[in-house]
Amino acid sequence: MILNSRLILALDVLSRDRALHLATALKDRVDYVKVGYPLILAAGLDIVGEIARIAPVIADLKIADIPNTNTLICEEVLDSGAAGIIAHAFVGRDSLSACVEAAREAGGLVFAVTEMSHPGAEELMGPAAERLARMAADCGVDGVVAPATRPERISLVRSIVGERAIISPGVGVQGGSPSAALKAGADSLIVGRSITESPNPAASADAILREIR
Amino acid sequence: MILNSRLILALDVLSRDRALHLATALKDRVDYVKVGYPLILAAGLDIVGEIARIAPVIADLKIADIPNTNTLICEEVLDSGAAGIIAHAFVGRDSLSACVEAAREAGGLVFAVTEMSHPGAEELMGPAAERLARMAADCGVDGVVAPATRPERISLVRSIVGERAIISPGVGVQGGSPSAALKAGADSLIVGRSITESPNPAASADAILREIR
Repeated sequence: MILNSRLILALDVLSRDRALHLATALKDRVDYVKVGYPLILAAGLDIVGEIARIAPVIADLKIADIPNTNTLICEEVLDSGAAGIIAHAFVGRDSLSACVEAAREAGGLVFAVTEMSHPGAEELMGPAAERLARMAADCGVDGVVAPATRPERISLVRSIVGERAIISPGVGVQGGSPSAALKAGADSLIVGRSITESPNPAASADAILREIR
Repeated sequence: MILNSRLILALDVLSRDRALHLATALKDRVDYVKVGYPLILAAGLDIVGEIARIAPVIADLKIADIPNTNTLICEEVLDSGAAGIIAHAFVGRDSLSACVEAAREAGGLVFAVTEMSHPGAEELMGPAAERLARMAADCGVDGVVAPATRPERISLVRSIVGERAIISPGVGVQGGSPSAALKAGADSLIVGRSITESPNPAASADAILREIR
């Protein structure tokens, strides 16, 4: 995994033009660009390859199906140019392992979701977070996703996943502190709206980069 | 929800032509055609609208993200012509409610996954199945997905979800009995490979229809 700026741009926009514009404007400030289904459905899977020619892409698909379907989804997205994918662990280790195998085959990275930051995640995912992190490590993922809004949880996840990467959404608009998340053990920060909705995205990215350097 | 034949075709193919061919050949034998991400990624989101002109489509996206992303995914897929969507309950009631609201807005149906049939689902989803079914009912889903491979689980889910629909994959190749699943309380059977991989898909569908009539 690339860890230069330690910043991942969450490209949560729906327009192909806006996505390509932001990726181009920010490519020297971020290690990866993270895209999800809303953009892929609106612009078509080819958008992954188009962005990948600008900056490495992590496809945040929260993959959560049976093993065979997970394999097919991973193959298509990695073939289209993604450098990494994000999958759920809660559907079980066979489903997650299918993603890991597809990624190995394609030379891509797999990140598992072990915890999410919206309130509903407290119901079933939160109490299972440690188990999900352990399962993810057992399955051989390259990293896990853990929320920057709760640095103490990042420390806990770090104690479970060892040297695997921790990528953390939730800084900026959602209130997480970039430096606290990194101090707690995050390797890379996923930042979206506080950059993409800024009147000056590059300057907003620079402000975060200054804080974490 | 349409419950005429009580059969939903799982269109687990990757080719647009094959998908349209099968949908056309089987449209009078099934109430819905279920499509997932592998086909949508390969053929583009427009395939949903193309199939919807032949038969009503349930988009089985196993949606499992934060509420705002879930809303965007639902809006795009329902706008493209899907009659219903399938979302995970595991990520929490706010995420699932976002899908229900988007579906109400579009006049579509929402089904929640309360249980899956692959072995890995036994780890975290299985023990949570009753809680997931209760959450799904509370959130106002139109129905839930429960595996036909375990009729006793369908009966249990029925006791929780009341009049809401239960749609059940797992008959045929995976070994579930169509008539046992319906007797246990399923409203509609989701059948894929035993129809789509048959040398004569229409005849294979007819054989299932004869068994359940």
